[in-house]
Amino acid sequence: MAVFSTLTPVFVAVLCVIIGFLFKNSQRRETRSKQKRSGETARPWVDEDLQDDTEISRKHNEDDDDWADTTEEENLPHIPYTPAQYSAAEMLERSEKFYSFMNLRRSVRFISPEPVPKEVIDNVIRTAGTAPSGAHTEPWTFVVVSDADVKHKIREIIEEEEEINYKQRMGDKWVHDLKRLRTNWVKEYLDVAPYLILVFKQTYGVLPNGKKKTHYYNEISVSISCGILLAALQNVGLVTVTTTPLNCGPQLRSLLQRPTNEKLLILLPVGYPASDARVPDLKRKDLSDIMVTV
Amino acid sequence: MAVFSTLTPVFVAVLCVIIGFLFKNSQRRETRSKQKRSGETARPWVDEDLQDDTEISRKHNEDDDDWADTTEEENLPHIPYTPAQYSAAEMLERSEKFYSFMNLRRSVRFISPEPVPKEVIDNVIRTAGTAPSGAHTEPWTFVVVSDADVKHKIREIIEEEEEINYKQRMGDKWVHDLKRLRTNWVKEYLDVAPYLILVFKQTYGVLPNGKKKTHYYNEISVSISCGILLAALQNVGLVTVTTTPLNCGPQLRSLLQRPTNEKLLILLPVGYPASDARVPDLKRKDLSDIMVTV
Repeated sequence: MAVFSTLTPVFVAVLCVIIGFLFKNSQRRETRSKQKRSGETARPWVDEDLQDDTEISRKHNEDDDDWADTTEEENLPHIPYTPAQYSAAEMLERSEKFYSFMNLRRSVRFISPEPVPKEVIDNVIRTAGTAPSGAHTEPWTFVVVSDADVKHKIREIIEEEEEINYKQRMGDKWVHDLKRLRTNWVKEYLDVAPYLILVFKQTYGVLPNGKKKTHYYNEISVSISCGILLAALQNVGLVTVTTTPLNCGPQLRSLLQRPTNEKLLILLPVGYPASDARVPDLKRKDLSDIMVTV
Repeated sequence: MAVFSTLTPVFVAVLCVIIGFLFKNSQRRETRSKQKRSGETARPWVDEDLQDDTEISRKHNEDDDDWADTTEEENLPHIPYTPAQYSAAEMLERSEKFYSFMNLRRSVRFISPEPVPKEVIDNVIRTAGTAPSGAHTEPWTFVVVSDADVKHKIREIIEEEEEINYKQRMGDKWVHDLKRLRTNWVKEYLDVAPYLILVFKQTYGVLPNGKKKTHYYNEISVSISCGILLAALQNVGLVTVTTTPLNCGPQLRSLLQRPTNEKLLILLPVGYPASDARVPDLKRKDLSDIMVTV
């Protein structure tokens, strides 16, 4: 009894340490499973490379709101702006023609290997560069790849990631996907198309003094620029398919030796349509389904 | 001594509990300060309404990668696609003309109150609706406001938020901003422009069975659509300024009675340019600054 009484403090101490240890461990496990859970919703299908601080913590300045007419550096002199104007009848006709023409545009995966004049691509990129951008930062880099080896390396990188994507997804929702799957991870057009245009968004710029300059709304700006690029391609009779290669950004950036402030947003294979090109017979929504008049 | 010996286990136990409590508390404080820190970087300039789950946890399916040609519902029949083709000389000429024309586009804040035919706006929106979108979800709603009262309410909402933005920012970086500030939070064009086009992104759709259907890459899709819309406006001689009203989304959505799956991305005041319209004398980057050839 005396021995037991003497040992009691030791027992209690050990017990407390054990309880404390178990308690701490359970907390750690909870944290870990929380991380895992949030990780699961964010992975593996999130292209984390596309996330950047500016999208999460974009700060506001007057240029964010009204785009493209002011620069960070200085107040520019203002000049009169008197663009061409058309009569109501002309406007109506022009608007109908442009709609009909743009409505013929389709995403095309069957691209002819026939060469395309590089000067045309230059002008298409120039046109994309006329897009407005937050604070006139022009936060875009268009990498135009025609080198066969580089195109093939791009294909290998994308197909490798895509195969993982497909197989993981198929493991996940097997039945549904098997039914729907008509394409696979093989992207022949990446070898075949005379040009691949890889559109990078610049998440920040570097000022002459070496300081970083945040590019607010860079993803929206670059996407708008891509919309104008698609119009410019349609205007010259070239086709493309808008793709967002998932999780390939870092590898492609490294292959193309782009700086770390540039993140791949969109990849466009560009060329003439193949003579046997086919597209799904899809319909677009009616005007009444996309427009509300107040 | 006996009393002390008897109390020892109690002391040890109390000591252990206190240590355990302190330890747990320090952990909790750390977590809280971490949360606070991440909260601080995200506020107050983040437009949280623009964040949506799809941007954070966008999952992948085959339609994400290659846009716009497949639907979630079914496999569509495929049809031949044989668009117009031009000779190399024609392509070059067309690309130069389109570039020159689009390069005349400027963001304009001085908009004439002169009425614009609604049919022209209809065609412009139709044209925007030809954009590709992730999985052909067409995740856009264009709210076209011409009603003077509603326009004025929109102006009030935006100016109120803008005043807060400006004043808070000025408190923050007073000297720098005072020097640069040429515009303020007064947005007269919101009353004056014959049309305000509010572009909403649909973060998800609702299937006939009532289930939600995630709209992957909806922000990129809607921004691309806006790029095509800007080209369509330029094509008919109308002007606009691309604006992203910060933190006004929920109020404007409520005013315009839009459902909660729609988030305001861009607001475009549209009309003829005012006769005394002026724009900053800015330059665009050279082709060599935006294009890399590989």
